[in-house]
Amino acid sequence: MALLQGGKLALASLLFLTPLIDIAMGQTFRRLGTCPTLGCVFPPDQIDFLAGQLFDIRLEVHAPTNGTEATNGVPDENFTFCIQKGNGVCVDVTRFFGVRDPSLEKWTFTYYEDLFARDAEQLTGVNVASKAYRAVTLHEPGSYRAILKYNGGAQTVANWVVRRPPARRTAKNVLFFIGDGMTQAMITAARLIGHKSINGKYQSLMQLDQMDALGLQMTHSIDSFITDSANSATALYTGKKSSVDALNVFADSSEDHFDDPKFETIAELFRRRTGGPIGIVSTAYIADATPGGLCAHTRSRDEYEAVVHEFLYNTSAISPTLDWPTGCRGADVIFGGGAEQFIPGSGSPNGTDFYKAFESEGYQVIYNNTQLKTVDNNKKTLGIFSTSNLAKWLDRNVYPDNLKGLKNSPTGDQGDAVDQPGLKDMTLKAIDILQARTRRDQGWFMMSEAASIDKMMHALDYDRALGELLELDDTVRASIAHLKKIGELENTLIVVTADHGHGFDVFGSADTQYLAAQTTDRRKRDAVGIYEGSGLSEYTVSPGSTPDNHTILFGAQGPHFPVQWTPRYTFAAGFGAVPDHRESYIGNAGGPRNPTTRGEDGYFGPRPEDRFEIHGTLPGSTSQGVHSLQDVPVYATGPGAASFRGVYNSVDIFFKIADALALGRTKD
Amino acid sequence: MALLQGGKLALASLLFLTPLIDIAMGQTFRRLGTCPTLGCVFPPDQIDFLAGQLFDIRLEVHAPTNGTEATNGVPDENFTFCIQKGNGVCVDVTRFFGVRDPSLEKWTFTYYEDLFARDAEQLTGVNVASKAYRAVTLHEPGSYRAILKYNGGAQTVANWVVRRPPARRTAKNVLFFIGDGMTQAMITAARLIGHKSINGKYQSLMQLDQMDALGLQMTHSIDSFITDSANSATALYTGKKSSVDALNVFADSSEDHFDDPKFETIAELFRRRTGGPIGIVSTAYIADATPGGLCAHTRSRDEYEAVVHEFLYNTSAISPTLDWPTGCRGADVIFGGGAEQFIPGSGSPNGTDFYKAFESEGYQVIYNNTQLKTVDNNKKTLGIFSTSNLAKWLDRNVYPDNLKGLKNSPTGDQGDAVDQPGLKDMTLKAIDILQARTRRDQGWFMMSEAASIDKMMHALDYDRALGELLELDDTVRASIAHLKKIGELENTLIVVTADHGHGFDVFGSADTQYLAAQTTDRRKRDAVGIYEGSGLSEYTVSPGSTPDNHTILFGAQGPHFPVQWTPRYTFAAGFGAVPDHRESYIGNAGGPRNPTTRGEDGYFGPRPEDRFEIHGTLPGSTSQGVHSLQDVPVYATGPGAASFRGVYNSVDIFFKIADALALGRTKD
Repeated sequence: MALLQGGKLALASLLFLTPLIDIAMGQTFRRLGTCPTLGCVFPPDQIDFLAGQLFDIRLEVHAPTNGTEATNGVPDENFTFCIQKGNGVCVDVTRFFGVRDPSLEKWTFTYYEDLFARDAEQLTGVNVASKAYRAVTLHEPGSYRAILKYNGGAQTVANWVVRRPPARRTAKNVLFFIGDGMTQAMITAARLIGHKSINGKYQSLMQLDQMDALGLQMTHSIDSFITDSANSATALYTGKKSSVDALNVFADSSEDHFDDPKFETIAELFRRRTGGPIGIVSTAYIADATPGGLCAHTRSRDEYEAVVHEFLYNTSAISPTLDWPTGCRGADVIFGGGAEQFIPGSGSPNGTDFYKAFESEGYQVIYNNTQLKTVDNNKKTLGIFSTSNLAKWLDRNVYPDNLKGLKNSPTGDQGDAVDQPGLKDMTLKAIDILQARTRRDQGWFMMSEAASIDKMMHALDYDRALGELLELDDTVRASIAHLKKIGELENTLIVVTADHGHGFDVFGSADTQYLAAQTTDRRKRDAVGIYEGSGLSEYTVSPGSTPDNHTILFGAQGPHFPVQWTPRYTFAAGFGAVPDHRESYIGNAGGPRNPTTRGEDGYFGPRPEDRFEIHGTLPGSTSQGVHSLQDVPVYATGPGAASFRGVYNSVDIFFKIADALALGRTKD
Repeated sequence: MALLQGGKLALASLLFLTPLIDIAMGQTFRRLGTCPTLGCVFPPDQIDFLAGQLFDIRLEVHAPTNGTEATNGVPDENFTFCIQKGNGVCVDVTRFFGVRDPSLEKWTFTYYEDLFARDAEQLTGVNVASKAYRAVTLHEPGSYRAILKYNGGAQTVANWVVRRPPARRTAKNVLFFIGDGMTQAMITAARLIGHKSINGKYQSLMQLDQMDALGLQMTHSIDSFITDSANSATALYTGKKSSVDALNVFADSSEDHFDDPKFETIAELFRRRTGGPIGIVSTAYIADATPGGLCAHTRSRDEYEAVVHEFLYNTSAISPTLDWPTGCRGADVIFGGGAEQFIPGSGSPNGTDFYKAFESEGYQVIYNNTQLKTVDNNKKTLGIFSTSNLAKWLDRNVYPDNLKGLKNSPTGDQGDAVDQPGLKDMTLKAIDILQARTRRDQGWFMMSEAASIDKMMHALDYDRALGELLELDDTVRASIAHLKKIGELENTLIVVTADHGHGFDVFGSADTQYLAAQTTDRRKRDAVGIYEGSGLSEYTVSPGSTPDNHTILFGAQGPHFPVQWTPRYTFAAGFGAVPDHRESYIGNAGGPRNPTTRGEDGYFGPRPEDRFEIHGTLPGSTSQGVHSLQDVPVYATGPGAASFRGVYNSVDIFFKIADALALGRTKD
């Protein structure tokens, strides 16, 4: 809070600010988000490091050729860069790290200064001079100042902190669950439909409700207040916020997706420090940002071939700058969807059969839930169970016919992937494999992602999203029971959090029969019951019965899931951020919802007419919902859980997990 | 969790359920929410009591005359009622409590079974036989079964629990803040506009972010999943959830608003057990549900005259059934708006000058902020600072001209209430008065409400709502500092929570210049920047400047508030639950927002046309936003704070506070 004391200084410096025309404050587009000045340092100001964490340095000097910041267009090539520890002298970077000065790089990029400039196709050009120093590290805890001097007197200062690591390791294993896009409002809604309440008292609770520690984390990006899942995965795994689409690099201004300055992830650090096994489980395609973020380093999360490449190999032939003396070095368990990156074809690395690449590195490869149950626990295992994302819990368990006809077999045989595991199946098996592959005291690290909470919230498919959330909760419950059974519960830190939210909330109930019987949009909306009219959850009572307070019913999926999914009175929910769409508040039995169709002027709510129209709040080019700002909850149980209490930044999650595993090193 | 073990029993009882036609499951309207059977017990099943807490019992037997539950229309008058402690015998209520049997009451009520019945004006009638037992209590901790037998064999069982009180008191004083309608999404948004972030790291934090303990509470009603503020105040103050509109009573089916079964509040208990002073502070009209709920008992929160009556007198002439051997007995500090209940006229008790009633009970009465600062700390004080709700922080501090011309003077002189205190002024002064009026070891209890977070979120006026939230945070911060200064911080439990949420969230930024320049609704929406296009908060930098990362600016309102409120790039936010309205994402400088105007077919978004239209999701009869389901955060600091960690029910807040003050008594 020291900066708060600087009020006097701040007011003083205000007097010397040169007001520029408003366009330079562009928010929608910016020259480079982390670099408001013309000299750029990466890692930028305010970055914290784990002691001994590897990172690259990138320096850039910008010379805009036109626009509001126009210069002569010649970037200063004689910039200098030094690093100062505490109150010491600033030592030239080459001497500080004992590295050689790299050759100068030069490039040009363009951007729009705002939406008016975009409409007028008025690009601003910027010439860049740059240097990069690869794979350096800081071991000594404390404060550092990294100073770039350029343009004969200008300077950009980055204040860095190396956090002091703990004296001892508290957790042997870490099981890290990510409910992608999950907010407390969604957990509340899932509780409403999956757990019975009598006169306001729940008769059972979510597993999340019962964890030892509760926290909240701030999800914003380094250069925008709404994040995507790549950027937020980066924060959770490395302790560094970055830009939208970036995985474990700071976004520089060059076009190359692989030359951006990298930093080491929790999985890489765990591997490098302990040699222990790593597990990666997701209901998404496995190259997606949240699973991919454990091992990959790229400016673009869409570089799927590179992402799967980095699961398997510690260094990469993709780009010389990826030559990186750390890495996942073949994660021991990889379970998810996304067969497109493995079946030989346009999506796989160099078009090769990438299943074979894993087999040649000693992996057993499996394709369905039947194989999952019987596979050898002692071997590295790749399980790819469909193309694209895995089937949703609701379709697997309530509407299994929706799994047919999709031609999404992971083997590429054009069959249907009807024998898919759920998050619980994958996670429990992964625990067994990691446990079998752990050598004494190494422990293991696993990330398990309920990916389609997010994917179904994007599609405004609330039922499926909540089904995924209930499956996550069920998986956490089953994992605790399983760890207890195998004697590892007291050794395992379990953390459950999200990477960002969606502005979803339930605001009442909807009488779907009444809604269907009305003929105008405004009359249909009269079916929504608010306040006392919201009534009680019909999802926990049997269809057609009177509510019997004292009877707890279980549906076909057992306790902790709805007894029925299509009651007459459904919950009514919505988002502030929506495309044009049509609403009936009825779950989509026929498969995941497609909220919009493309028209001449962007996306519109599709027919049928038995839904009422909701005008969107998002640009017409947006086909689905988007992420929101709100802090997301953190739940933890096990050794080190207490440190997850309270309100903190997303990046702190990395430090808390790394500290529980004692991955920091104050000496080489 | 014992009920979870009852899976076998539950499935067995399912077989004996008689399926009724669907209408009986009505959610939008119900015969009586807490009574799915024809015999009703209040307090109903699943209610917990503080040991020694006073409550009424109400029994009802229903005989519907038509509709899906039609009987012969004659309610059983010979019902019996007994209470069983633990595994003991069930003792008739008169013997159990040593009270006389009251005379039988009879009445009739009607309701609609669903929306179709409402449209057809098809009422269902119900004849009722009833008895009420007033002001009983249970001292012995443990489980009780209260059994109503009726209709020759039918029975309704209510399971009650008296919680075991702690051995000793941990907190001398309790300062209980309620941010009405406040969610974590709103706190996140307030942090964004009030606190500067550099490369993703906040340079200062909300006071709430820094409290010792973080929890989450479930806000649902006893008989609906969306609550109002009366019902939720009841839960927080008494440990009993109730129905929408009810203050500290369970809703019975009779028309009388004052004969419903009451239960004792935290303020009444504090007064009865310690004799210490009570403070009630709100930015709402003081008869509003959240302040009123500390002392009042009525089925209808709209009984404003009764509410202010109950602040002052311990028993009431309003109704014999209000004769109640407990009460606030003249709360020591009452600060808020709502002069309508004091100025002689249609809103004041019996049309009298109710300021005089307070003066005759020894109160000093004040009307503005100037008086507030100089008033005697040793006297009971009533401060009413305007008619209706108090002015909003944004209008008082940024747009003071909006305070003019409102003719809202609290004295009734038709002047303008331009010298109004804010929440901080009122709360700090209330601390001083309570402190001066405390006799050694009594301690004090205060509730301080930031009411207009809710009121402005209802109006979709995000800026004003967040201004109120920042003021609350500033008040908590100032209260901690003030308590420290007077040596009471370590004696004071400070709890901050909400009573329910609204489904508000920020999903991006809006380029308001671009929005204004577009001519169609769909093009205007293109001004919204999502993900990387959301950029950084412009509220924390000075207008027209380039973002200088290292400069922390303070606006005229000091740190922890925005530097500017009308930047070019605003935050873009919204709700899932909205009336038809029009949006520009520009704050309403001219005063609180009025989101709709009344048209022939309900409420519509008003002109002007420089906003784009958003179709509502709520019934056309709804003029503003509504409450939502999501769990709301709880923050606590001071003695007893640790018990507020984790996830729990709203009613638990009452027990946690009562336990910190040791208000339970296991013997009379």
